Parts: sequence; structure tokens; C-alpha cells
Amino acid sequence: MKHFFLSMLSLLLTVNIAGAQELASPDGNLKMKFGLNNGAPTYQLTFKGKDVIKPSKLGLELKEDQAKLEFGAEIEKPIQRDVKTTLYDGFTLAATQAAAQDETWQPVWGEVKDIRSHYNELTVTLNQKETDRNLIIRFRLFNDGLGFRYEFPDQKSLTYFVVKEEKTQFAMPGDITAYWIPGDYDTQEYDFTTSKLSEIRSLFHGAITPNASQRQFSETGVQTPLMLKTNDNLYVNIHEAALVDYSCMSLNLDDKNMIFESWLTPDIQDSKGYLQAPCVSPWRTIVVSDDARDILASKLILNLNEPCKIKDVSWIKPVKYVGIWWEMITGKSEWAYTSLPSVQLGITDYVHAKPNGRHAANNENVKKYIDFAAKHGFDAVLVEGWNIGWEDWFGHSKDYVFDFVTPYPDFDLPMLRDYAKSNGVRIIMHHETSGSVRNYERHMDKAFQLMADNSYNAVKTGYVGNIIPRGETHYGQWMVNHYMYAVKKAADYKIMLNAHEAVRPTGLHRTYPNLLAQESAQGTEYQAFIGSKPNHATLLPFTRLMGGPMDYTPGIFEMDISKYNPNSKAHCNATLCNQLALYVTMYSPLQMAADLPETYEKFMDAFQFIKDVAVDWDNSKYLEAEPGEHITVARKAKGSGSWFVGNVCGENGYTSNIAFDFLEANKTYIATIYSDAKTAHYKANPQAYEIRKFVVTNKSKLKQRSAPGGGYAISIVEAEKSDVKGIKKL
Amino acid sequence: MKHFFLSMLSLLLTVNIAGAQELASPDGNLKMKFGLNNGAPTYQLTFKGKDVIKPSKLGLELKEDQAKLEFGAEIEKPIQRDVKTTLYDGFTLAATQAAAQDETWQPVWGEVKDIRSHYNELTVTLNQKETDRNLIIRFRLFNDGLGFRYEFPDQKSLTYFVVKEEKTQFAMPGDITAYWIPGDYDTQEYDFTTSKLSEIRSLFHGAITPNASQRQFSETGVQTPLMLKTNDNLYVNIHEAALVDYSCMSLNLDDKNMIFESWLTPDIQDSKGYLQAPCVSPWRTIVVSDDARDILASKLILNLNEPCKIKDVSWIKPVKYVGIWWEMITGKSEWAYTSLPSVQLGITDYVHAKPNGRHAANNENVKKYIDFAAKHGFDAVLVEGWNIGWEDWFGHSKDYVFDFVTPYPDFDLPMLRDYAKSNGVRIIMHHETSGSVRNYERHMDKAFQLMADNSYNAVKTGYVGNIIPRGETHYGQWMVNHYMYAVKKAADYKIMLNAHEAVRPTGLHRTYPNLLAQESAQGTEYQAFIGSKPNHATLLPFTRLMGGPMDYTPGIFEMDISKYNPNSKAHCNATLCNQLALYVTMYSPLQMAADLPETYEKFMDAFQFIKDVAVDWDNSKYLEAEPGEHITVARKAKGSGSWFVGNVCGENGYTSNIAFDFLEANKTYIATIYSDAKTAHYKANPQAYEIRKFVVTNKSKLKQRSAPGGGYAISIVEAEKSDVKGIKKL
Repeated sequence: MKHFFLSMLSLLLTVNIAGAQELASPDGNLKMKFGLNNGAPTYQLTFKGKDVIKPSKLGLELKEDQAKLEFGAEIEKPIQRDVKTTLYDGFTLAATQAAAQDETWQPVWGEVKDIRSHYNELTVTLNQKETDRNLIIRFRLFNDGLGFRYEFPDQKSLTYFVVKEEKTQFAMPGDITAYWIPGDYDTQEYDFTTSKLSEIRSLFHGAITPNASQRQFSETGVQTPLMLKTNDNLYVNIHEAALVDYSCMSLNLDDKNMIFESWLTPDIQDSKGYLQAPCVSPWRTIVVSDDARDILASKLILNLNEPCKIKDVSWIKPVKYVGIWWEMITGKSEWAYTSLPSVQLGITDYVHAKPNGRHAANNENVKKYIDFAAKHGFDAVLVEGWNIGWEDWFGHSKDYVFDFVTPYPDFDLPMLRDYAKSNGVRIIMHHETSGSVRNYERHMDKAFQLMADNSYNAVKTGYVGNIIPRGETHYGQWMVNHYMYAVKKAADYKIMLNAHEAVRPTGLHRTYPNLLAQESAQGTEYQAFIGSKPNHATLLPFTRLMGGPMDYTPGIFEMDISKYNPNSKAHCNATLCNQLALYVTMYSPLQMAADLPETYEKFMDAFQFIKDVAVDWDNSKYLEAEPGEHITVARKAKGSGSWFVGNVCGENGYTSNIAFDFLEANKTYIATIYSDAKTAHYKANPQAYEIRKFVVTNKSKLKQRSAPGGGYAISIVEAEKSDVKGIKKL
Repeated sequence: MKHFFLSMLSLLLTVNIAGAQELASPDGNLKMKFGLNNGAPTYQLTFKGKDVIKPSKLGLELKEDQAKLEFGAEIEKPIQRDVKTTLYDGFTLAATQAAAQDETWQPVWGEVKDIRSHYNELTVTLNQKETDRNLIIRFRLFNDGLGFRYEFPDQKSLTYFVVKEEKTQFAMPGDITAYWIPGDYDTQEYDFTTSKLSEIRSLFHGAITPNASQRQFSETGVQTPLMLKTNDNLYVNIHEAALVDYSCMSLNLDDKNMIFESWLTPDIQDSKGYLQAPCVSPWRTIVVSDDARDILASKLILNLNEPCKIKDVSWIKPVKYVGIWWEMITGKSEWAYTSLPSVQLGITDYVHAKPNGRHAANNENVKKYIDFAAKHGFDAVLVEGWNIGWEDWFGHSKDYVFDFVTPYPDFDLPMLRDYAKSNGVRIIMHHETSGSVRNYERHMDKAFQLMADNSYNAVKTGYVGNIIPRGETHYGQWMVNHYMYAVKKAADYKIMLNAHEAVRPTGLHRTYPNLLAQESAQGTEYQAFIGSKPNHATLLPFTRLMGGPMDYTPGIFEMDISKYNPNSKAHCNATLCNQLALYVTMYSPLQMAADLPETYEKFMDAFQFIKDVAVDWDNSKYLEAEPGEHITVARKAKGSGSWFVGNVCGENGYTSNIAFDFLEANKTYIATIYSDAKTAHYKANPQAYEIRKFVVTNKSKLKQRSAPGGGYAISIVEAEKSDVKGIKKL
């Protein structure tokens, strides 16, 4: 259903003498004002009369025009043209246009079956008289927030240009609360810090933990999606949508004036974007509500992305998987097959090399995981370390580090392919690039063809370490372009993608739903490295997940990592029930049960929840939410009457009070509640849990305590009367 | 025939107390001495007792060791390891080894049928005690010069390392004469300057002409192959052989001490090579003689390259071609199909776009060239500008600039393919990359597949403008690696390659003979831009051509470029006979007749030489040579009794005196001499020529005057007695 129309009436759009324009959200709660302040584009945003964004400037600064030099006239000396580089001042309003949309569309997979895109739109065309350049800014105001972008139309005075900096401001309404990670061109793998804006500078260095590749740019630089809470209790989230062939945006805070400004990721020449008109910037997004649950439920970022561009999507399916991974992450096993300190692909003789005896991706172990997956109904088994090159894959800026097609001698690809197939399980391919991106692109077609030829339909990619081409970073335009290249190329081969260490998602999975999930944040692996803060999972849905699903790899049941690796002192800062709840609270169509089969075998009653939980949904209800404190979600499984509820909380624990009114009326369900035992605690007693069964209806209510770093999970299944015999009502 | 042996006797190798080693060439004329000077590796070279290279240091400087950081231990702070970065001092001699070779091998194509590789070898293993690092230096001394390289063996103390600079010295025997072009990371397209070493600094800026991409590094920086003439009349050429996965070497002169030192091409992080032991550097080559002709005849660089790695070479054939090219170079026509100022591939609607009416690669014109090629026995027609994207291909740092597969609407690929085929002619593919190398690699397989599917067996590649990835240069390790990738990939599709703007060749065509030719110097196009110096072609064989054949595109008959393009003031600084002689003096298995068919039609008697001349040879004799002054060569056509002679000279003209003793005894030949008329002059009267026929034998002699910027060409065909009737004896 599509309603495109132009209407002055419907938009509450008024033009005043100074050229100020007003735009209101369909429900009237959000109001955006745009005007030219002495020729400088300026906007502001309010929610129910409260300031969200105070008057803030818009525009870009360009790099000086390149020397003019024509081929064949190589004899002519280059002429440096003296052209104005500011694209943020000296503007007059050339035209305005109003539009609106109210449309409902269906994602290929998602949290809900139907997504409504309902907004009022204002498009302003600005002319910079001195240069005769035109800049268009398009605003879309939804009930849940604002999106706007720059558009560079086809014109004589601006065709090829290099962005020196985007100058988009987000002026904050005071010294408000931020849930932030340090701005960095290479990694988002940081724990969150909750502080006032004025405290960011002093807390900045303490917020940095080492990473395989990292580069901060400012002591008040933070990353998006940035979650904020104003002093009059508005929840605000700033991010971007549809990051395509442009540099990833971070935010830099002017902490005198409490103004965030966009800070694009530069290349090594300090250029922040090579553009050719006609083109557009990504959308800058501001999701707003006075109820934190609305932030989590927002579909604004998806709505600002283009519709699906893949015609046949029949091969794209959510996946629940286990994998040969956690045993390497914990140090129990290794990716590498030998102990050689250095190898050369095509030269090193692996067949005659001495195995190190710790290689996890061996035939026997892979079969064990396939057996486990088949027995418990998992779709797939991820196998890392199957291919040659792992001996020296990391930290050497090695160009030809992997070929992505040659297995280690103890990984019999055809045999395992057939074994998996006969067990109804897929093997998930793994392409770690070690950041050597030219090398990956060179091998990509053959690597994907190998997958297609051997029934692999999903790949996990990785970009650990510094990028090659050297000097590029993970979030610059070069790499943004690469990630999209990989997504499209994978789609050509009907391959689903799960990218690790890639740029944070911006809703592009609407357009390319084969981009099933990404990492792009501090995932569960950090529980085996340093342990994440207990409230980490209460913040990810408000931050990282705003852009798209995460391959968070939950399901850790053994929190004491030394049980796997005596040399490790790491501890997973979560209770076992918190880990169960993540399958519901951390929305993703790709969910791993990350711990080892032998551990799950010890907790089969709890593991039942992971077996039961869905990975695709018809509906989702955010029941309780406060960033850093707790999140409670209920989701209805795709094409089923079953619901699943999850709650996670932070350091302080939480007592949840929920109503089951999301259930269908006049139906009876059996709820199985997996909750922290009274003595449970993420540190001291993480494995203490209770499992209880109740009969519930849409009138039922639950008061449930979650331990510090804990949570609970509920599966709710429609029941016949005969099923409920002997089960208490809740 | 292979003779590998170890023999102290045969090597004249003596070890003195200080550890100095001596090595002599097989004929004893060249003597190399190696020793450690206070722990610093040092060598020197003499020819017949005269200094060629005075005592000169060897070694490398490394970049500081990278921070040590292990994956999975991302929590640990990186540790900066304090490791000695010098790899040029503190050495002791750990081992020496002697070897020799006398072997004859056959190139797939070349100047001669058989190439003899005859050398004595000394290999020294040096140990740097403080670091326990081993460095091997391998010297090979031929009768025509010295080659040596660094070898980094497999060892614990040196595995991954980054070269800060190679410190190879070439200490000159005084203030000698150099024939040089400015050192530059992006272009070799410069005219040569002849000067004393001490004059380089003051002449440097005057020697620079603008280029689409250029970056000099020092006012005494020069490029290799560097031709030198000592004050006691030795001819010396310094270059490198087998440049593989390493940065291209230039030379920087210490003009106080007259010492050249290697200057590798850096990446944007100022790193000059990322290496992993075991590995080797390219060979550093010093070709020496007291007769300039020996320099031109030297096969030392080929001998230092690896044997052919392509198993089936049946598809590799020398090519004589015409092409749609000179009309664009002169400005008569255009590459682009429309006058659109900017295009986007896949978006711009070319089918409905207005043609500019100046597009040369149109069906009719291509057919005209095919007709001309067929009529006159050419193998192929190069067509540039056949594919979409040329409207804005240059100077915009545009990433997706070409797709290499989509023709312009007026280029009917299947029709022209069939038309060419029915005329016994091939079309040569053109892949201009505009320096956007990631884009080229992404499209390479499809582009080569299109060629394979449509009977194209040769491609001209181009790298005009600054390189993308931005910050890389044409001659850094990144691009050196790319050019090799393209050569190997082309070989996979049985495609012959002709690379323009690529790094200068270093004899790799021995190993990959599908690398038919390259540009990598100021070619004939400059005659249409600014005009080259009249002696340019007397220097190229002593410099650029030492590394491999050049696609020089000779054969210009119309020297007044304004005849094609009224806006041009350019003049081709050569006589017509000079242009004919180039087919012999500028050895290449790829030869173009570059001028327009309509021009050739006016000079069919002279054009006959271009039709007749061979492109592959059984033998070559350098009859006369002096760099900058004149070159006279005789070559015997492959599998034929015919010979061709060429002479070119510079500003001063030249009177050649040659004997025909290279001809077979007791045979009669008819020689057709194409020579400058008495009034000929490259500037004033370039088209004045004479054609004379004589009967010659191996006793004949010729005294022939060439005009300033002139030359002569002779075709010599075996004759029956009946053929010679009425033809005068020479």
C-alpha cells in the first residue's frame, strides 16, 4: 500500500518571512524547523514541545579543487583553480517541496511481519550564489524520529568533489546523558560508558581497551548509533541509514557548547569522501521518544533504506547454528594446523608438515559438531580454521595470507559436505581476510564458487587487524565500498553473509537481506578475553543493533573460561539465564549456540530453550526498557502461535513486571520460565537457575526477579486443554 | 645445455685474510671484489683494470618492528620491541659458496634465437651477530656485467619485515657522463638529459615536463635503466632484473662523492617493501663494456630472470598492427562517444545520448582500419575508445570509471569481431584503467572472458593518472604486484599483454612471454604533444629497452600535427626514414604503424618497408652505436634469410659506415635502402627520402648519410640471379 502525495495541508508546513520551514510528524509530536541563518542551513527538532536538537548547522566542507590537467595536454602546466570550498554558507532558498508517505512493506526476515513507513517530507533546494552550486537537503519526519540527507543534483558547478568534512551538527539540549564508546576508525569493539556529555573527555582514555586495529581521532569523539537521554527524560538515538559509497560517520563533541558534529572517516590523504554528482549522502537519523521502548521498536532506519534489490529471495533463511569457534576463542584449541612460525601459500608443504595436535577444524571434531547440530535441530555448523594460512595470519601485514579455497589436510571438504548433508545440516563457510582486502577480492569469485559447488549457503567474513591497502581503515569509503561489493557478490552466488569487524550496519539488510548479520561491536568473544560489563547486553539493542542484527554468539553456559584453558583468567559476566534471554533480547536472524557441545550436554534442561527459540518473527513487543538497566521483549515466532520472552539486566539486577496481554485472547498457553535462582549472580554463581512451567493466558501477569547480570527467558506455546493437566496457572 | 659446477679453479676465487673475495667473469675482463669493511658489506667492480664501481656498500635499513599483538589477547597492551633496524653493519662472513653456469636457452620470441647464460657466481652468507640475522648476497659475473641480489633465508630472527630503504651503493669512478631522466614514483615519460653527474642537480627542474601523474623525490634522483659513460670510455648501465613483489628502484646521487644509492618507491606510509622470508630482492644489474654496441647486445637482464613459466606458449606470437589511436592522440578524434561532462556506468543512457560526432571507434572507421590492415598484411587493429566511460575517465580520481565489457552504441562488437575474422585480422582489446586499479581487478576476469569469447588474443592496458588506492604510486610494491597479477591472469586466458604507464620492465618477459611489450617511457605520443628531442630514439635502446621491449608506436609520416588538428602546434621531430628505421632499432615483438591509413596511402613506396619488416628475429647485430648520437642495427628475420637494417641518429646527423659481412657468404641479396634525401631535416624537411635498390653480398659495404633527426632503413632479401637483372651492385 503506497500513498505518495503532495499536500501543503497534510504537512503542517508553513513558510515565514525569514524563510523558515516547519515540518511535523504524522502524529504531530515531533516538529522540525529548517531555515537559513545568514545563509547557513539550520534545523532544530522538538518532541512534544521539548528540545531534542537545538538549532544546528548543516552543510559540508570540500577539499580544494584538484589541479586541472587534461590527458594529451600533458604538456600544459596544471592550473590550481581557486574555488570556494565551503558548502555550508552563502545559501539562498531556491525551492521547497513537500511530500508524504504511508506505506506498509514486508521484510524478508525480521522482528515483525509488516513494517509501516509513515512520514512527512520536506525537501529544500539551496543555491550558493557565489559558486552557483545547488545543495538539496531532504528531511523525513516519522512519528519515531527524523531522517535527513544531503543530495547533490546534476549541475555544472559541482560534479566531482572531495569531502574534507561533513559539518552536520546535533546541538544537544544541555549536558545530557550519553551511552558511548570511543570514536575510532577501525573498531567498535568497546564496552559502553554511561556519563554526562561533559564527562566524556575525562573518561575517554579509560574507555579504550586494546584492539587488533584501532585509531581514535579526538578525546570527545564517539561512535554511532549513539544513545542519549535528555535531562527531561527524552530518549534520543543518533545514527545513519543507508551508508553506501561514503565514509562512516562518527560524532565529535564540542563539550563547551554541547554540540555534536559529524566526523567522517578519512583516507590516508585525509579525504573523507570522493563523490560524483548526482549522488546523495547517507541519511542522518535521530530516533526520539519519551519511552525507551519506542527506541528499540523503531523501524526508521530500515524505512530510510531502499527496498529489497534481490529479486529471488527464496534462498535467504534465518539460521540457528553451532560452531567450531568458542574452543579457539577460549584458547582450548587453535585455528592453525601446524606450529610453523611462518607459512607461504602454495609453497609450504602442509601435507608433510607436523600437525600441532590442537587444530579444531579436523574431520572428527567437525563430525561431532554436525552430530550435535543434527540431534538438536540446528540448521548449521560454523567451522573456522578449515583453510590453510592460519599459522601467521595475524599482525604481519601479510598480503597473500589466505586463498579461501584450500583446506588443511585434516579437513576433508567433500566428505564433510556429504556427512553434513546426510544429517540435514549445512556447514557455514569462514573467510577471515586478516584485513587483506585486495587479496580477498582477488579470490572472492573462486571462493564463492567453491561454496556454491559444495552446498555452502552462508559465510562468516572477518577483517581482523589493519587493512591492506595499508593506510585505509575499516570505516573509510574504500572499505564501505568493499563490504557492499562482498554483499552483492555473495548475492550473485545466493550466499548469505555475516561480516565481522566490518563497518557498523545502517539498515542495508532491507535492500540486501542476504546480509544476515554483522558483528561490529564487542561481542561474546570479549567474555573470553576480558569479560564485558554486566549491562553490556542492555545497551547493545539501544546502540549497535539500531542499524541491524548482530552475530552476538550468545549461549555461554560455562562462565569460568579456565575450565577450557587453564591459562585464562577470563570470566563471562552473565548468568546462564541471561545467556538464554539474549536469543530474544538481541534480535538477529542468525543465532549461535556458542558454547561447547559437552557443556550443553550437562545442562540439557536449560539448553532446551535454545533449541526451542525461534530466529524469525511475526511480531515483537518491547515490554520494559531502560538503557544500561534492563530490557524485556516478547516475540511471536514466524508462522506460529508461540511466543518467546527475554529479559536481561545489568549490575543491579531487576524485578520485571509484565503482562501477557500480547497473547491471543481466549487461548491457553504453557509458559516455560527459565530464570535466575535466588542465589544467582553473574560473578559468584552464574549457573544457578530454575525452570518452571505455568499455564498462561492473555490475562496473566508475571513478577520475576533477575539477578545482577542476569535475566530470564520464557517460551510460550499454545496448549490443548489436555496438555495443561497438572500445570499451575500463573 | 647446462653446466652447473662448483670449482675454485674456474672462478679465480681467492680469499684473503681480511675476508675479501674475488670473482672474475668467464673471459676475465670483469673483476668483482667483495669484503666486509668493519662489518659493512662492500663490493667493487673493474673492467680490464679500469674502475666501473668503486668500493660501495651493500645492505638494507628496516623499519622498526611492528607492535607485538596477538589475536585473542586483544586485552594485552602492545609491546614495542626494540630491535636493531640496520641490516648493513655488524656482519661477519659465515659462509661463501662458488658456482658457475654456461647454458644456452631459446626465448619464445626475441632478438636472437639462442641466448647464452655464462657466469661465475659467488654467494656470501653474512651473519649479524647482535641480532643473529643472516643475509645472503649472491653475485653473478657475466662477460657483459654483474648482477647481484639480496636473499633473506628462512631463519628465526628475521621473518616478516618492512624495508625502510635499500642501501645499495654504486660509487662512480669520478664525475662521469649520465644519460638520465628525473627520478619519479609515477612516470618515466621524460626526455633524456645528457650531462655530467655534477650537473644533474642544476639541470633537474628543467628536465621535468608535466605529466598526468608524477612525484619526484630528490633533485639528484634519476631512474634506471641508467646509462653512463666513464671518463675513460667505459659504457655502464645500471638497472634491475626480475622485479617481483618489491618496490621499483630509482637511484639517488650523492653528488659530493659521486655515489648513487638505491632509492625504493615508498607507499604512503613511507614503507618501501613488505617482505616475508624466505625471499629475495630483485637483481641489481651493472652492464659494462668499452664498446657501446655490447651494451645493446647484452642479455644479462634476461639471463637473471627465471625461465618461462608458461607451459603452452603456442598462442604467443609477435604482432604488427595498426590502430585507432593516433587520431585521438593528435586531437583529430575523440575516445568519448558523447559530450556529456560526466557519466555514471549503468546509469547514463548511452543509447539515447547525443553522439559528439568525433568518436573514432565507430563501426565504419573500425572497418576501414580492418580493411587497411588486411590489405597490407598487418596482424591486428588496436581500437581505443570502444567501451563506455571515456567522457570523464581522466583526472577525477573516479573509482568505477570503466567496466571493460560494455561497448559504445556505435561499436558493434560481434559484427566487428566477425568482420575482422573474415579479413584474417584480430582486434586488439584496450583496457584503460585510469589508474583505478581495484576497479580493474574487480572486472578483470569478466573482461578477459569477453576477450576469450570473442577471439581477442591481445590487450593494451593503461594506467593514466594517479593510482587508486589513493596514495599508492605507479612504481610501489602494491602496483608491481598488480602488474604481475594482470600478466598471470592474462596468461590464464591465453592473452598477450602490452602495458602502458606500468613500471619499467626488468626482463620478466622471459618468464612470462605473454608480456609482449610495455610503454614505460616517453613514446611516440609525445611527438604529438610537445615533440621529443631528435636523439630520443638513440637513447631509448641504451636505457628503457634494457629491461624489455617497448610499444613505441613508430611510423609517423605526417610530422606536422596541425594537419590533423588545426589547434595543435606540435611537430614530430624525426624524418620519415628515421621513423622507418625504428622498426629495427627499437626492438619489440609488438610493432605498430601508428599513423593514419590515409597518410600511408600517400607514401606507399616508403610504407612498403613497414609492410616488409619482421617482428621476430633469429639474429641481431649491433653495427654502430653511441648513446645520444646514433645506433645502427642489422637483424635477421625469424625463419627467413632476409635481413633488415636500421639506423637512427640525433640532432647532428650521422654518416654510417657498415659492412654487410653479417650476410651469408656466397649468396646474393637485393637491398632496398630507404634513406633521407640530401635536403632532409627532422624539422624543416622531414618527408624528403630516397629509395634505392642494390645487389649486395657479404662483401658489400655502405657509407650512408642520415640527416639531423634522421636515419635509414634497409630490407635485404635473398635473390636468384634472374632477380638482380638491371640492379646495380652496391
